[in-house]
Amino acid sequence: MPSISHRGQQMPPSPIRKLVPYAEGAKKKGIKVYHLNIGQPDIETPKPVLDAVRNSTFTVLEYSHSAGFESYRKKLCEYYRRFGVNLTPDQIIVTTGGSEAIYFAMSACLDPGDEIIVPEPFYANYNGFAVSSQVVIKPVFSSIKDGFKLPPIEDFEKNITPKTKAIMICNPNNPTGYLYAAEEMETLKEICLKHNLFLFSDEAYREFCYDNHEHISAMSLTGMENHVILMDTISKRYSACGGRIGAFVTKNVEVYNAAMKFAQARLSPPTFAQIAGEAAVDLPANYFDEVKAEYKKRRDVLVERLNKIPGVYCPNPGGAFYAMASLPVESAEDFCQWLLEDFSYNNQTVMMAPASGFYATPGLGKNEVRFAYVLNTDDINHAMDCLEKALEEYNK
Amino acid sequence: MPSISHRGQQMPPSPIRKLVPYAEGAKKKGIKVYHLNIGQPDIETPKPVLDAVRNSTFTVLEYSHSAGFESYRKKLCEYYRRFGVNLTPDQIIVTTGGSEAIYFAMSACLDPGDEIIVPEPFYANYNGFAVSSQVVIKPVFSSIKDGFKLPPIEDFEKNITPKTKAIMICNPNNPTGYLYAAEEMETLKEICLKHNLFLFSDEAYREFCYDNHEHISAMSLTGMENHVILMDTISKRYSACGGRIGAFVTKNVEVYNAAMKFAQARLSPPTFAQIAGEAAVDLPANYFDEVKAEYKKRRDVLVERLNKIPGVYCPNPGGAFYAMASLPVESAEDFCQWLLEDFSYNNQTVMMAPASGFYATPGLGKNEVRFAYVLNTDDINHAMDCLEKALEEYNK
Repeated sequence: MPSISHRGQQMPPSPIRKLVPYAEGAKKKGIKVYHLNIGQPDIETPKPVLDAVRNSTFTVLEYSHSAGFESYRKKLCEYYRRFGVNLTPDQIIVTTGGSEAIYFAMSACLDPGDEIIVPEPFYANYNGFAVSSQVVIKPVFSSIKDGFKLPPIEDFEKNITPKTKAIMICNPNNPTGYLYAAEEMETLKEICLKHNLFLFSDEAYREFCYDNHEHISAMSLTGMENHVILMDTISKRYSACGGRIGAFVTKNVEVYNAAMKFAQARLSPPTFAQIAGEAAVDLPANYFDEVKAEYKKRRDVLVERLNKIPGVYCPNPGGAFYAMASLPVESAEDFCQWLLEDFSYNNQTVMMAPASGFYATPGLGKNEVRFAYVLNTDDINHAMDCLEKALEEYNK
Repeated sequence: MPSISHRGQQMPPSPIRKLVPYAEGAKKKGIKVYHLNIGQPDIETPKPVLDAVRNSTFTVLEYSHSAGFESYRKKLCEYYRRFGVNLTPDQIIVTTGGSEAIYFAMSACLDPGDEIIVPEPFYANYNGFAVSSQVVIKPVFSSIKDGFKLPPIEDFEKNITPKTKAIMICNPNNPTGYLYAAEEMETLKEICLKHNLFLFSDEAYREFCYDNHEHISAMSLTGMENHVILMDTISKRYSACGGRIGAFVTKNVEVYNAAMKFAQARLSPPTFAQIAGEAAVDLPANYFDEVKAEYKKRRDVLVERLNKIPGVYCPNPGGAFYAMASLPVESAEDFCQWLLEDFSYNNQTVMMAPASGFYATPGLGKNEVRFAYVLNTDDINHAMDCLEKALEEYNK
């Protein structure tokens, strides 16, 4: 029997997925599980977005252009212009989800063995793309105590080697919800220019910034035109995760042309959901107000409830729909499993994502968990009731 | 300015794409271009397939399972059972087009530098996936004179090194239309078992076999359960190229589990087109009869017309919707460009794919072209009128 590849063996298992059988077990016992573990929003996909697909009238489901429909790329230029980023359609490749934009960025800019510096904790799937592209993620520690702000410049520089090709950020951040401030973006610019590095910027949660903080897109950093690759997606923005539509955006012509060859090899992004994405750009300007207000309300409830529980600490996240908290337990992984396997309160329990999967450095984040506040405030309150009781019982 | 990766530089340019500006130029001059250059069928997507999407009623466009909806995988088991391949839903990963199935196969089974033997000419995009995965394609020559039948076993064995991990076929073949006979499939089995190799089988055109020849799926080879990976797609089968829905199928549990980790990193295949794919399995049993009859009629016209042109030779392909022909020209690339740039007949011309892009060995196939018979017979006849006149004029 032929054996699988080393990269196949190296692909990291997800700590969330390890919990799935336990969640199923709890449900079999009739226990209601509050899923705060995964970034699948419960918010409805805007009706005009779904209707655009449902009312489509084409008769052949054809390939689109490998960079995506030109009409959609023009619409996207309109979308980006709204927050001051001026693009042309030939600086955008419509991708199959934000995932493919990450893969294009890594493949077009890095060779096997090349390195990319990423503040940790970071979105766990970056590991998967790194292994499949055979590039190396060098983590730089950001601390829950500092609310996950950007690590000091020296910490980045310590990790730069001749193989370093890029810094990658997610802003606002998954899993921490941290929103990078203007000075932090300037710091990143300084490092990238000084060491001639790409800046990969995952801005999936751009619209979800709270407390009147402004989102600063990496695309708006002057002098960084040849350094920045924006990795984008409609998944969270319009609650359209299943569409699998994202975007790879760069003003660097050489990088764009290289990425286009990867795009051509896979022919085209999905046609149906491009129609959805194009319609989404025409949503009324106030569309995000309501969604943002809803997420902010949830964040406020979640963070307040968490910080009231003895021994729990949760810095207030500035954006996205995630929050990280440290718990008074030794192993959050064990605790999360116990919550599903052995605990219930009023026949309910809660599922969270153990944070260890978001750290690349072994041993970090062992007592931390990530919450995705993708449930309404009533459910969040019920979930917090469970968590509060559970910690009491677990630590008895 | 940071530089792109070596793999970004190595990504092969497509000889078809080089012709695109010339085709656009011809159109600007008001010349009608018959596109026989690309495998985008003109056949309408079956209405029930599109209607399933248009009549869908969900309110949140959610991620599906990373392996695809279980309901769809169950339906696919029903589909495969129809030609004697018995599968369970956990042997199938729904992919984003056949493209992603190829990428999963290469990544799960091969490491950078590992080798895969492919009969040439072969589908040009295999090169793109090989470069992005950093695996090496070793071509084995199949000759137009022999109608592109499977090269002798010794030719495969000559190319086997300690780094060889797999043989890859496309059956029926793109670009040659060749349909592998039962004995050829047995030969492949023999080589794979003897040398402990995977067999990657791209069966995108399974239903399109003519002259009562039977398609033998690699999945039906007994004793090869741990060796075979089937790479499938709904693109050609149901004229649904834009859906971007394919399948990665294997009975090898270790390979399946490794591929699932790549699938989990990219979250899920597109939701909308999975609904289309699921509906397609329920098309009436005679759905393919009409489509096949149409393609066969076109093949017959195309091949007959081609072989009547002095100096042209086109072996009769047994399947798919492609045919390869050798032309009485030195460089098919130059000729194809000339057809678009400098030629017209009755204000019409024809676009074909120069075959050199389908060969990995430099210099091979220089006087060959691939035809995709994705136009109706009237148009094929017009295109052949053009080609006939053009060759006369070109060779004057």
